[in-house]
Amino acid sequence: MAFVTRQFVRSVSSSSTASASAKKIIIKHVTVIGGGLMGAGIAQVAAATGHTVMLVDQTEDILAKSRKGIEESLRKVAKKKFAENPKVIKTPMTSQKTTESLIDFSKALGKHPVSCKDTPGFIVNRLLVPYLMEAIRLHERGDASKEDIDTAMKLGAGYPMGPFELLDYVGLDTVKFIIDGWHEVDAKNPLFQPSPSLNKLVAENKVGKKTGEGYYKYK
Amino acid sequence: MAFVTRQFVRSVSSSSTASASAKKIIIKHVTVIGGGLMGAGIAQVAAATGHTVMLVDQTEDILAKSRKGIEESLRKVAKKKFAENPKVIKTPMTSQKTTESLIDFSKALGKHPVSCKDTPGFIVNRLLVPYLMEAIRLHERGDASKEDIDTAMKLGAGYPMGPFELLDYVGLDTVKFIIDGWHEVDAKNPLFQPSPSLNKLVAENKVGKKTGEGYYKYK
Repeated sequence: MAFVTRQFVRSVSSSSTASASAKKIIIKHVTVIGGGLMGAGIAQVAAATGHTVMLVDQTEDILAKSRKGIEESLRKVAKKKFAENPKVIKTPMTSQKTTESLIDFSKALGKHPVSCKDTPGFIVNRLLVPYLMEAIRLHERGDASKEDIDTAMKLGAGYPMGPFELLDYVGLDTVKFIIDGWHEVDAKNPLFQPSPSLNKLVAENKVGKKTGEGYYKYK
Repeated sequence: MAFVTRQFVRSVSSSSTASASAKKIIIKHVTVIGGGLMGAGIAQVAAATGHTVMLVDQTEDILAKSRKGIEESLRKVAKKKFAENPKVIKTPMTSQKTTESLIDFSKALGKHPVSCKDTPGFIVNRLLVPYLMEAIRLHERGDASKEDIDTAMKLGAGYPMGPFELLDYVGLDTVKFIIDGWHEVDAKNPLFQPSPSLNKLVAENKVGKKTGEGYYKYK
């Protein structure tokens, strides 16, 4: 199951890719395997920045949904800015050429690439998820209310969302899935210990905004 | 050593304090012990919101500096907004009357008070300092560069500063002081373990922005 979007006029070439074109690969055709949240997003951005995109998925429904998303994003493309940053994950088997080519590709997508070794959670999740778990534990110890923890982190640390707002936004099932995975690999790390309140909410299918209730209620 | 600033016209009374005035104390006179960074800041805000302020310190220099700061803030007061949030720290010996009076006082200062038990780091530092240490450890393990960690947390998590920028801004000596204190109390907690790079920089008096170098250089 696959489809190809129309190619956009904007070229991926830049001064840095041109001067190093002998060494590096200039990526023009992008194949995305899996059209879920991430895959569809990558396909959208790649298409909107002038790449030929092939999206592969087993499910017709997902393909149709992704195609719709891509078409919408192509209509919005002229004024759209992309703020997120992709990671170029470098394993011991990744060549310098591949890394550099992917960095150029990320820049061509309008992103700011960062480099990280192939470690659990990479950068953002590795720092964010333990922080979220520590916020849950602070609350579970009875030291402060969810509301006050959220307020303190927003006003005191300038974070855009408090940890409990973010937990509900990300989805408690997702956070539990991540922390359970890390706990399996490194069971003694206290950062990766399961949380009773998180487990209880997930068991009750109160996984956050998407089900109408998590640490907060949204109905 | 003490001085009293002139009283401002703005009253601290509000509908909530008026209706509960029989039970709660309305704070009009504020004595601040110690005119360092925090004390001088509290004195400035209290003076600027119409309280009589007495600032007590052993050092004439600090008093003179604080007085200057208060006078400056009084000049700016008309248009000034206060965004930070004070914590009303509640120990088992704190009465409900005291807590409620302090909450009203915080609101009169134009702040959003949050409540927290008397635990190490309270809310913001308890969540922020371990996160900063985890960022240092991520870097010390060689998983990603300081620059890329900072970029990822700013663009990926929407934080106003990256962890290494924040470390340098807060001061590495301050962060080391906090983490060493927690380590003394709870030596087995891996979150509170000392960091080789942090200790090295502090030993070299490279403690951040204030000395011109920390994790980054500022000269």
